[in-house]
Amino acid sequence: MSIFDQVRKPTLLLDEAATRRNIARMAARARDAGVRFRPHFKTHQSAAIGEWFRPHGVTAITASSLEMAEYFAGAGWDDITVAFPFNPREMETANRLAQHIRLNLLVESSETLDFLTRHLTAPVNVWIKVNAGANRTGLGWDTPETIVLLAQQAGSASPHVRFQGLLTHAGHTYQASGAQAVSAVYRESIQRLDAARRAVQAAGLDCALSVGDTPAATLADDLGPVDEIRPGNFVFYDTHQYLRGVCAAEDVAVALACPVVAHHPEREEIVVYGGAIHLSKDFVQDGERRVYGLVAAPDGERWGAPLPGAYVRSLSQEHGILYVPREQFARFPIGGLAVVLPAHSCLTVQVMRRFVTLDGRGIETLNQ
Amino acid sequence: MSIFDQVRKPTLLLDEAATRRNIARMAARARDAGVRFRPHFKTHQSAAIGEWFRPHGVTAITASSLEMAEYFAGAGWDDITVAFPFNPREMETANRLAQHIRLNLLVESSETLDFLTRHLTAPVNVWIKVNAGANRTGLGWDTPETIVLLAQQAGSASPHVRFQGLLTHAGHTYQASGAQAVSAVYRESIQRLDAARRAVQAAGLDCALSVGDTPAATLADDLGPVDEIRPGNFVFYDTHQYLRGVCAAEDVAVALACPVVAHHPEREEIVVYGGAIHLSKDFVQDGERRVYGLVAAPDGERWGAPLPGAYVRSLSQEHGILYVPREQFARFPIGGLAVVLPAHSCLTVQVMRRFVTLDGRGIETLNQ
Repeated sequence: MSIFDQVRKPTLLLDEAATRRNIARMAARARDAGVRFRPHFKTHQSAAIGEWFRPHGVTAITASSLEMAEYFAGAGWDDITVAFPFNPREMETANRLAQHIRLNLLVESSETLDFLTRHLTAPVNVWIKVNAGANRTGLGWDTPETIVLLAQQAGSASPHVRFQGLLTHAGHTYQASGAQAVSAVYRESIQRLDAARRAVQAAGLDCALSVGDTPAATLADDLGPVDEIRPGNFVFYDTHQYLRGVCAAEDVAVALACPVVAHHPEREEIVVYGGAIHLSKDFVQDGERRVYGLVAAPDGERWGAPLPGAYVRSLSQEHGILYVPREQFARFPIGGLAVVLPAHSCLTVQVMRRFVTLDGRGIETLNQ
Repeated sequence: MSIFDQVRKPTLLLDEAATRRNIARMAARARDAGVRFRPHFKTHQSAAIGEWFRPHGVTAITASSLEMAEYFAGAGWDDITVAFPFNPREMETANRLAQHIRLNLLVESSETLDFLTRHLTAPVNVWIKVNAGANRTGLGWDTPETIVLLAQQAGSASPHVRFQGLLTHAGHTYQASGAQAVSAVYRESIQRLDAARRAVQAAGLDCALSVGDTPAATLADDLGPVDEIRPGNFVFYDTHQYLRGVCAAEDVAVALACPVVAHHPEREEIVVYGGAIHLSKDFVQDGERRVYGLVAAPDGERWGAPLPGAYVRSLSQEHGILYVPREQFARFPIGGLAVVLPAHSCLTVQVMRRFVTLDGRGIETLNQ
């Protein structure tokens, strides 16, 4: 019996073989470049999938919250970076974790560092978050004097604060398409970060560089003078990465199996049970189209290639509206299944909270 | 101690008094119009909040999935409409439920109705889903002959199938702004639905009308010749409803308390712990702006009015980027809290899965 025969409602399918290939490939990239591979576990959020990294020598990971760090600490990971500006309201959790593991925290203001210094009861590693152009958060790469001042404060703050270096998320690579454009954005970010590092070193401090984004970690022709990479999304990739030329369709390792419930041939639309509460409401802007996912049909034990032209046109709470060329309707009878490659796999995993492998095993996450 | 002193991480606050007011007001609207009030429980998804409807004589409810119907059946609700086209893959669940409660299902194709007829083991009520202009799903209002044929099939299908009438979700009222525009869209939908009903009645069948959308249920000058209304969002409202003039700011009954973690005065941006995994990635298009939420400050035991000009400009997995005019920065110190009125409360509840009332009680949902 195929996995598709067992699907009753929207189900997040996981292709374990593709996932393991993605992990192996990224681990090899890091090894070849001589940088530490500290994968971001926020994409899969699963202790079971975390184990698949260990055979590649991975011993240090990234999480996006202290809560997630606690979950993975419970699964035996003892070197975790929480890649989010430290939230002073969670001081107690941080102290609890810092007693058991090598905890890496991000700061980007003197106030937060000062707060940490006054309240830490165990040692932590501190990284300064730098904005290298993505403009989400972090100290500006073009304000080296501010970065140096904060690094000096961190370097002398307290025996509990061990300054490590500068960390960035070059999130603007997600807007680039193809290896050349991604490499160009990445190269500029690294030059900026490296200049800031040299300013910190000139002040007499050791300073490592940590970067993390899937497009550059996958495609950049040269990872440059960095000490570690923290990609996360690569473990599954998604429609976004596929449409931007970062991965091949067969690298996309998660997909939502959705029961077909209605046909509207006059609009070339198929309605599936699978909406914003299953896929999240994220989309990829692709020219004029907002693509909430690509559409494939079940094909034996896996899903097939994305159907040319077909895509998820809109999502409401439980409804997915799929544009499907009329000649493809026969693949999706009412009572059958459509398979949606999510726009953004991290958010789809977050809302679904559970995977089912192609051979029918359930895999839980942090949120289950 | 105020509730705000207890917040450590993103927390979905619930104003119980505002919620109860919203419920009372909508129940009175339905009573005054002489229509049955069958509230959609997909917005709150909580058995505890469901109880707040009973004092208003509510005995019939709407759910968006069979799973949600099972949850509320377990909480003592015995007349439930699942307002989603029936998914043949869940036949077993439907039969299980139909043995215990008055279950109302939606069909919009002869195939689905035929499947139901062959597999039902207990009686259900069947409604025909009609597209009255929202173009999400349903039989076209302008194809009365198709509607009549399906109604006739339902009327004679089997002793287990009891045809009830026509049901629509006039979802395009969500695009309208203000009472006049909402009323106009609603009036047109009802006229279309009523014409289809007359065609069904002319074929000798009894036929009720069921409609459901918060803007019209709140604002329409006349609910028209309908038998029941199924609004859901009104229980909390949200930024969308507020910006479209459907509710007042003080009617918005849920908000996400978010720790402030960084300041970027040069961009007039504040970074909070509170991202797409807490608010969902939905937004309201407001002119050129994509508004992922409005921003308020804690004010005593509740949050204050939305700050003029401030809004959530973007969301990544855990980061919320708030545009806040510089002169308001002092209200949001690092380590303090910003309060976000969600763009779309239904999806925020879905991802948060748990409320905390202003006096500190936890309220669980279906997904907890």
